Amino acid sequence: MSELSKLITRLENGAPLPSDLYAKTGRAHIVGITGPPGVGKSSLIDRLIEEYRGQKKKVGVIAVDPTSPITGGALLGDRLRMQRHSEDNGVFIRSLATRNHRGGVTDSTPAIVHALDAAGFDVVIVETVGTGQDEVEVAEVADTVVVVLMPELGDAIQRAKSGLMEIADILVINKSDLGTTKTEAIHTSAKTGEGIPALVGAIEAHHNSLVKSAELAKRRARAARAEVIRLLQSRMSASILRALETAQSQTILNDVAERKLDPVDAVAKLTQELRHVTAKPHRHT
Amino acid sequence: MSELSKLITRLENGAPLPSDLYAKTGRAHIVGITGPPGVGKSSLIDRLIEEYRGQKKKVGVIAVDPTSPITGGALLGDRLRMQRHSEDNGVFIRSLATRNHRGGVTDSTPAIVHALDAAGFDVVIVETVGTGQDEVEVAEVADTVVVVLMPELGDAIQRAKSGLMEIADILVINKSDLGTTKTEAIHTSAKTGEGIPALVGAIEAHHNSLVKSAELAKRRARAARAEVIRLLQSRMSASILRALETAQSQTILNDVAERKLDPVDAVAKLTQELRHVTAKPHRHT
Repeated sequence: MSELSKLITRLENGAPLPSDLYAKTGRAHIVGITGPPGVGKSSLIDRLIEEYRGQKKKVGVIAVDPTSPITGGALLGDRLRMQRHSEDNGVFIRSLATRNHRGGVTDSTPAIVHALDAAGFDVVIVETVGTGQDEVEVAEVADTVVVVLMPELGDAIQRAKSGLMEIADILVINKSDLGTTKTEAIHTSAKTGEGIPALVGAIEAHHNSLVKSAELAKRRARAARAEVIRLLQSRMSASILRALETAQSQTILNDVAERKLDPVDAVAKLTQELRHVTAKPHRHT
Repeated sequence: MSELSKLITRLENGAPLPSDLYAKTGRAHIVGITGPPGVGKSSLIDRLIEEYRGQKKKVGVIAVDPTSPITGGALLGDRLRMQRHSEDNGVFIRSLATRNHRGGVTDSTPAIVHALDAAGFDVVIVETVGTGQDEVEVAEVADTVVVVLMPELGDAIQRAKSGLMEIADILVINKSDLGTTKTEAIHTSAKTGEGIPALVGAIEAHHNSLVKSAELAKRRARAARAEVIRLLQSRMSASILRALETAQSQTILNDVAERKLDPVDAVAKLTQELRHVTAKPHRHT
């Protein structure tokens, strides 16, 4: 296992970013790729890797997978195909499990993006499943958001589209070999390779327009804010869980379950408990 | 608009539960109904309402909808059909928007369940879209979890199934008019009404077994704990957002965006800021 791979595993397990690393970030182009299940995002990313490698660009991929192919054991065919690049030092792929996690981006995703950025990857792709709930999250991490759809989608997925369209910088209709649409979008077929150079071109053009305008700085400021909020919340959630372990807290929770105490009053009492529980030792203390 | 309807709107907007209400709860049977998009959950619930009303039971329905039919404007056909019961005083239906919310249950869902419970509804149905991420959440609210699938599901949805199966007390194969499966499950057709009395029977049998065993108390204790954690987290998130508004915080966030300060150090500094921001006035102060 490479040093980078070990670092990413530590980050995935909740370790803080090494203190010298963040200053080396900001160079990579962070590309979010999202869309409903089944539209072929992984196959498309496989093709994008090929195209970027042809341009000698180093590509990192973080696949946020709610079905947890790594720890859950059910390795997916698409992911497996992507892994054929794993012998290539210019490619780094990591699937992040989201089991029991709410939302499209895990708490460790921003730190792992930083690790790949600092390691010199030119493009960092963050793949999430866009179910209409997590769309905002990938937009908070990425410079450029690519939304992938396909010609024929069921009603329920069509409904989720509106939320996705709001965050799309680039819209892709994949599986275009299955049919045509009138949408103004890039038509690709991960199967035949059709449209892949056009997509890479559109991603680069979007990045260039971000760099030229004030938009990149604005998006990075939004990303920084989102990352800090996420870290603060995760730290506080850990404090809450520790505070609930005390005997006094257990009594309060039992009283709520038995309808002797209402949840709002319980929260007031537990906030007191929380003040007595000190936060975990910090990296710099 | 009824008093109950007004109360639920206040709760949905974040108001705390009225202090005398919680003590009146605990009588209703809370039934979670979840499954992938498109399996016909809303039509099934429409049939369940009919069946329960035939038994003179009062039914409340909380539909947590990530596509936000109410505020988003896109009222769905299925929901519309369910609304035909809205003239019936023994039925109360409310769709909750989850726009910008991560996960399957909104922060206000437990309080709204309590409001319907205290108002004398015999059965409170909580409908969520099970995308493989939010399955735990509905199980934290419900006494009985019904997972709805259909005979033919796409690959991506099949993958999400495993997470759903873990929390299923009752498995339903809806749209059984489209085909048969060998799964041990209740086969229903919301279209023809097939299997609906069997499903209501299974839900009641599950409830009876919970009541007879220690399991109901255990599930209610878990629900109380989850509700209190959710309230604590939501309160803390509000404190975090307020703390980030100060000039000092803005400087810290700008330094992160410009790579002068790393996110971990920023969190340490902001934790200090957070101590200076007092929490919002509480219900009882």
